[in-house]
Amino acid sequence: MEKIRRNERMSAMMKILADSPNHIFTLSYFCEMFGAAKSTMSEDIDILRDVVKTFGLGELETVTGAAGGVRYRAKVTAKDAIAYVQSLCDQLSGTERVLPGGFLYYSDILSNPEIVHRMGNILATTYYDAAPDFVLTMETKGIPVALATANALGVPLVIARHSSRVYEGSAVNINYVSGSSHAIETMSLSRRAVQEGQKALIVDDFLKGGGTAKGMVDLMHEFNVTVVGMAFVMETVAPEKKRVNGEKALMTLEISTEEDGAAVIRPAAWLAEELG
Amino acid sequence: MEKIRRNERMSAMMKILADSPNHIFTLSYFCEMFGAAKSTMSEDIDILRDVVKTFGLGELETVTGAAGGVRYRAKVTAKDAIAYVQSLCDQLSGTERVLPGGFLYYSDILSNPEIVHRMGNILATTYYDAAPDFVLTMETKGIPVALATANALGVPLVIARHSSRVYEGSAVNINYVSGSSHAIETMSLSRRAVQEGQKALIVDDFLKGGGTAKGMVDLMHEFNVTVVGMAFVMETVAPEKKRVNGEKALMTLEISTEEDGAAVIRPAAWLAEELG
Repeated sequence: MEKIRRNERMSAMMKILADSPNHIFTLSYFCEMFGAAKSTMSEDIDILRDVVKTFGLGELETVTGAAGGVRYRAKVTAKDAIAYVQSLCDQLSGTERVLPGGFLYYSDILSNPEIVHRMGNILATTYYDAAPDFVLTMETKGIPVALATANALGVPLVIARHSSRVYEGSAVNINYVSGSSHAIETMSLSRRAVQEGQKALIVDDFLKGGGTAKGMVDLMHEFNVTVVGMAFVMETVAPEKKRVNGEKALMTLEISTEEDGAAVIRPAAWLAEELG
Repeated sequence: MEKIRRNERMSAMMKILADSPNHIFTLSYFCEMFGAAKSTMSEDIDILRDVVKTFGLGELETVTGAAGGVRYRAKVTAKDAIAYVQSLCDQLSGTERVLPGGFLYYSDILSNPEIVHRMGNILATTYYDAAPDFVLTMETKGIPVALATANALGVPLVIARHSSRVYEGSAVNINYVSGSSHAIETMSLSRRAVQEGQKALIVDDFLKGGGTAKGMVDLMHEFNVTVVGMAFVMETVAPEKKRVNGEKALMTLEISTEEDGAAVIRPAAWLAEELG
């Protein structure tokens, strides 16, 4: 095999690590791939760690111990996170996207691959330490951002449905009270989807009263799964009291009661407080 | 600014290019970022192109002309695509995943970030040349793989719903005949979601009779949008005649009529014929 140079090794390694966020690769894996000594690979990784940090591309971490190696985490700094969320708020604020009834149109934002990728990285940054085994969302609008978050965390996505379907096999159904309309709704999840004792991170697009979020928490209890966090793209300022606690939303939404009915959207306060 | 070395520049450039597939970055963009001359950056890119190719990480393309620069495409070789799809077929075949009524459970596969990323790259490889403006899917199960395909193509994802919702604004509804059950169903898409004259790639999880796919084609006609392709994760062998033509599915499914009722799943023939 032709000798592989450092710049070639490092570029390939960067791509491979970033393609599987939060996945630990052993040094031996890369030694074999590149036909290089462990000491050489360690040096490569040291340089790569600095590159990733310098250019704000996430974080490279060395994990020691028997199952040790190196992993990439799609971490975002507080400064970058706030700047990005602010740019989304600027796009969404105003009267243009307000629909009859005071609803906000932002489906395009929620299914834009680049935007959900950025939002998913911010949410994942907050929950890497909680180490969820999977991300749970309720169909439909939150699926893309939940997938992006699951991707950054290196875990599967699990999707709860409004009703059980033939292609999901036996399922657990629960009823919950919609937070805003007080209607009784059903939520369904395949028995095969999760295992007892796992840890779930709930991710969804929108939090108003918190009825659906509370339903997802109850659903997880049925499976004996612990909920380690709840993250949303947007939450409404009113009602202040939600049916759930401890949730983190990227943005807060208020529809102005002034005549123009404009949407006032702001980055959430916790972004500045909690992210490195 | 401290002098940035080639290995550092190349690693950072790899990450930035791969984070925005199919997006053209100008040389000037990287020159400014790294404080390097154009000739130096050209050399970097030449080396990076070989790295990406050697390690099967996709393709780096130089685009000439006024809007020229360099772009990363998540292209997969026929060999890698077939090997990967075969590994999925092996996971899904057999009796374990067959549900009452002859349905196949594979929701876990359809919402696994790493798997949909790989499937999305294979589908995107097939449709880079068709240059769709967006990917269209119908809620719910196809959303993750459609998002991954849209990401690899560098275009937005558009999601059609079963019914129009208040938060989608004014919408176009069409009725279509479900291919297998012959029931009349409704499909709805926000008027704001797409523009006249655009090109759509349809991506969904499953094709049986083709009723839903046909519905999506009709929906696009309502918007004066051209459908440049239709891609699916899986299609059934029967019925042989679908309501649409020219579709490409990654796998074919046959539920054995023998007593054991096992699922027989195979990589589609076009993978070998069409991918480089």
